[in-house]
Amino acid sequence: MSDESQELGITESKSHKPGDWYAEVVQKAGLADYAPMGGFIVTKPRGYALWEGIQDALDSEFKATGVDNVYFPMFIPESFLEREKDIVEGFDPEVAWVTHGGHDELEERLAVRPTSESIIAPFMADWTRSHRDLPLRLNQWCSVVRWEATETKPFFRTKEFMWQEGHTAHASDESAWEEVWTRLGQYENLYEDVLAIPVLRGKKPEHDKFPGADTTTTVEALMPDGKSVQGATSHNLGQSFAEAFDITFADEDEDERTAYTTSWGLSWRAIGALIMTHSDDQGLVLPPTIAPTQVVIVPIWQEDTKDDVLEYSADIADDLEAAGFSVELDDRDERNPGFKFNEHELNGVPLRLEIGPYEVEDEEVTLVHRPDNEESVEDRDEIVDAVDEHLDEVFDKLYDAAETNLEENVREAYSPEEILGTIGKHGGYVKTSWCGDEACEEAIKEKIAAEIVMQPLEDEGGTTAGEVPEPDHDECGVCGDPADEIAYFAKSY
Amino acid sequence: MSDESQELGITESKSHKPGDWYAEVVQKAGLADYAPMGGFIVTKPRGYALWEGIQDALDSEFKATGVDNVYFPMFIPESFLEREKDIVEGFDPEVAWVTHGGHDELEERLAVRPTSESIIAPFMADWTRSHRDLPLRLNQWCSVVRWEATETKPFFRTKEFMWQEGHTAHASDESAWEEVWTRLGQYENLYEDVLAIPVLRGKKPEHDKFPGADTTTTVEALMPDGKSVQGATSHNLGQSFAEAFDITFADEDEDERTAYTTSWGLSWRAIGALIMTHSDDQGLVLPPTIAPTQVVIVPIWQEDTKDDVLEYSADIADDLEAAGFSVELDDRDERNPGFKFNEHELNGVPLRLEIGPYEVEDEEVTLVHRPDNEESVEDRDEIVDAVDEHLDEVFDKLYDAAETNLEENVREAYSPEEILGTIGKHGGYVKTSWCGDEACEEAIKEKIAAEIVMQPLEDEGGTTAGEVPEPDHDECGVCGDPADEIAYFAKSY
Repeated sequence: MSDESQELGITESKSHKPGDWYAEVVQKAGLADYAPMGGFIVTKPRGYALWEGIQDALDSEFKATGVDNVYFPMFIPESFLEREKDIVEGFDPEVAWVTHGGHDELEERLAVRPTSESIIAPFMADWTRSHRDLPLRLNQWCSVVRWEATETKPFFRTKEFMWQEGHTAHASDESAWEEVWTRLGQYENLYEDVLAIPVLRGKKPEHDKFPGADTTTTVEALMPDGKSVQGATSHNLGQSFAEAFDITFADEDEDERTAYTTSWGLSWRAIGALIMTHSDDQGLVLPPTIAPTQVVIVPIWQEDTKDDVLEYSADIADDLEAAGFSVELDDRDERNPGFKFNEHELNGVPLRLEIGPYEVEDEEVTLVHRPDNEESVEDRDEIVDAVDEHLDEVFDKLYDAAETNLEENVREAYSPEEILGTIGKHGGYVKTSWCGDEACEEAIKEKIAAEIVMQPLEDEGGTTAGEVPEPDHDECGVCGDPADEIAYFAKSY
Repeated sequence: MSDESQELGITESKSHKPGDWYAEVVQKAGLADYAPMGGFIVTKPRGYALWEGIQDALDSEFKATGVDNVYFPMFIPESFLEREKDIVEGFDPEVAWVTHGGHDELEERLAVRPTSESIIAPFMADWTRSHRDLPLRLNQWCSVVRWEATETKPFFRTKEFMWQEGHTAHASDESAWEEVWTRLGQYENLYEDVLAIPVLRGKKPEHDKFPGADTTTTVEALMPDGKSVQGATSHNLGQSFAEAFDITFADEDEDERTAYTTSWGLSWRAIGALIMTHSDDQGLVLPPTIAPTQVVIVPIWQEDTKDDVLEYSADIADDLEAAGFSVELDDRDERNPGFKFNEHELNGVPLRLEIGPYEVEDEEVTLVHRPDNEESVEDRDEIVDAVDEHLDEVFDKLYDAAETNLEENVREAYSPEEILGTIGKHGGYVKTSWCGDEACEEAIKEKIAAEIVMQPLEDEGGTTAGEVPEPDHDECGVCGDPADEIAYFAKSY
């Protein structure tokens, strides 16, 4: 390999130094760069394309289920933030404040939105008069800012991050619950069907809910390094925001009633989970469902075969494009095939078509899967169907590997030593019985930085909260007090 | 009409009080509301849908012509803004400053981006090594903030506004010019083909260029009230940003050279121009090319005909949806047809289908155009083709009216009295000869608030700047000095 292709390659190892490896993949696959201000990143074309893929997939689901997109101001007056006490307590320490406009000091400081409940709720109040106006379902795609002083990790920990935030109002608690589960289900589908990442659904423990929420539901994804990622959350806010912001409506009998609200969000952390789950020491790996380029064709020629090989390759590219695949024909003169193979592997193109003079002569095509380099030869005439099948195979390989990782890494433990030992040795989730006291989480967290990432729910998905099932052991796995809940401990991103 | 439908209607008149009328249409058609902080608006579902329509149309054109979407941080360190002197002078008076993160004062103030050249250019420098990296074409869809102390006018004058900003780097001045014209042409197409608004192309006078630009090109649209709207701008930045931020590249001979950059943007002001151009005293009017709902079906029934009418209407809705039209079947029980007619007129649905028992019996459909209520009857069997044709007719009506307004309102004048008199009496554009001195613009501006909104160009569209054609008169229309340029005066938004 030339020096240039060494520079191209990933030098860190996913299994030995996952943090450094992750940072290297993000930069070398052209997903993001670090901005000059700590905590901020620049999202480059290939990284932004992933976000656009996520947006397209989710946005069409939202719209098909009654959600309208809107845009609220990026600033929130301080007095608005203060109207819901949990919100101000929850976010005040991490708000970026605008204090000056031009050369003048503002009369009231403006928060750069850390989340938009406080600016959206007053308008929901205004727009909600009658039960006929409900449910009211709004969503916005935007960025938010949370001034956390932690090390920057692109897509996982940044002071500004992209997300969507949905905000809805309902006439009943049942309708609000239906909303919460609809959105959580859509997040689950995004992870499983588009990102090829199986997730666990559950709720956050009481002490870890969204500020002001009655219940926070979550989808959690297990990374290969044994840590959990909170993939997206969907909150039943009960009536706390409706009461703080006077969201009321006239019911069928013209009686004034207080609404129920929800909010739900998915951030570009989904991109982080995507990278972390599938990629390897050769670089980015993407399921074909989200890859901006699904198929790359690398023609391999000598001077005397060049015209034939390129013509044959271009015809195949045309056929695949006409069939709706996203295809790149890499006919660069200045790079040799080996360099190109490495580069497209680094960038995570799911399927490579290699076409040399033998393929032209035999009217065949050689197909190579990312990530495992499995090679097949298919007939030229059946290339469209073959590509379709091979892309499905690539997806299945990725999903299956992630599913195996998840299935093999949920373990039970019923004493502090066992919990600590299991997480310390294997990572993953440790299922235990829990008394419900935050102190028991703290006891574990202090020793091994693992926390309760979720509690499973039974009978969820309808118009009620669902219930945390009874644990097999009736003593708390940490303190030994009576326990009637199940909790999943894990280290998390 | 009921009280409720009076509340629904527009009470101001477009011809007598265009400003009040505009504000009323924006609010009553559900496009936007005023935010609690002066200068900010909340973009409601029907308003945001217009922005999404514009995004979809432009974004696909950008992508088809080599542009990649990216996302840069919303904050720019003060020291970065200061690196290009024209930018800092141009924007400093209207920057919103973040001074605190959480409870701590920041070491360096951060500007909320008023435009992103200063944060994008350093990365362009980093990403540009060789001539092979050029042209580099980046775009982002985002909002920006400019702290101007003027009266809020939704989509026209707001402190935060949505836009797209394109930023490119090139190996030559010719390549930069080609870029400038490509983007201006795409803006022109958006206005003319999607928004049904004819525009004039030209350049801004030297003293009104974008800070730091060599040339600012513009598309200008004439509103029915005689004022011009700057529809979008495309700037040739020459080498000033490349020099300030060291955007250099190795050419074919490995010599280091300085790049040429451009930037170009279109904001939600396009929505303002859209509303202002076509709407009327009944409310919003939208061309079918941008209308979120293109066709509304209003069934008209008595109790004994209800089932037949609704079934017939639903079948037609299905046929139209299957053909790709965006259709709403308004089968609300609690509203009468007259109320529905008014509401859909207010909301700007281009085509209304009225279906009563007679239509069912005769296997026909009655179609009504927005804005002129022209009525036709078409056969049920040919409804898909008929709707297609009628939507085209609606588009043509709107475009033709706007084109007539433009054609009839470009007048020539060659003395200050004549310029002032013509604009005072008719509004519109006044074409005159100009010596190039800003003082001549000031002389007119002081008296009648009209300015030079553009200068026409000859031979533009290629790889050069184009030239301002020779005027018919060789004396400046304002001061009488020798003049070799043409200028268009107009009042503007």
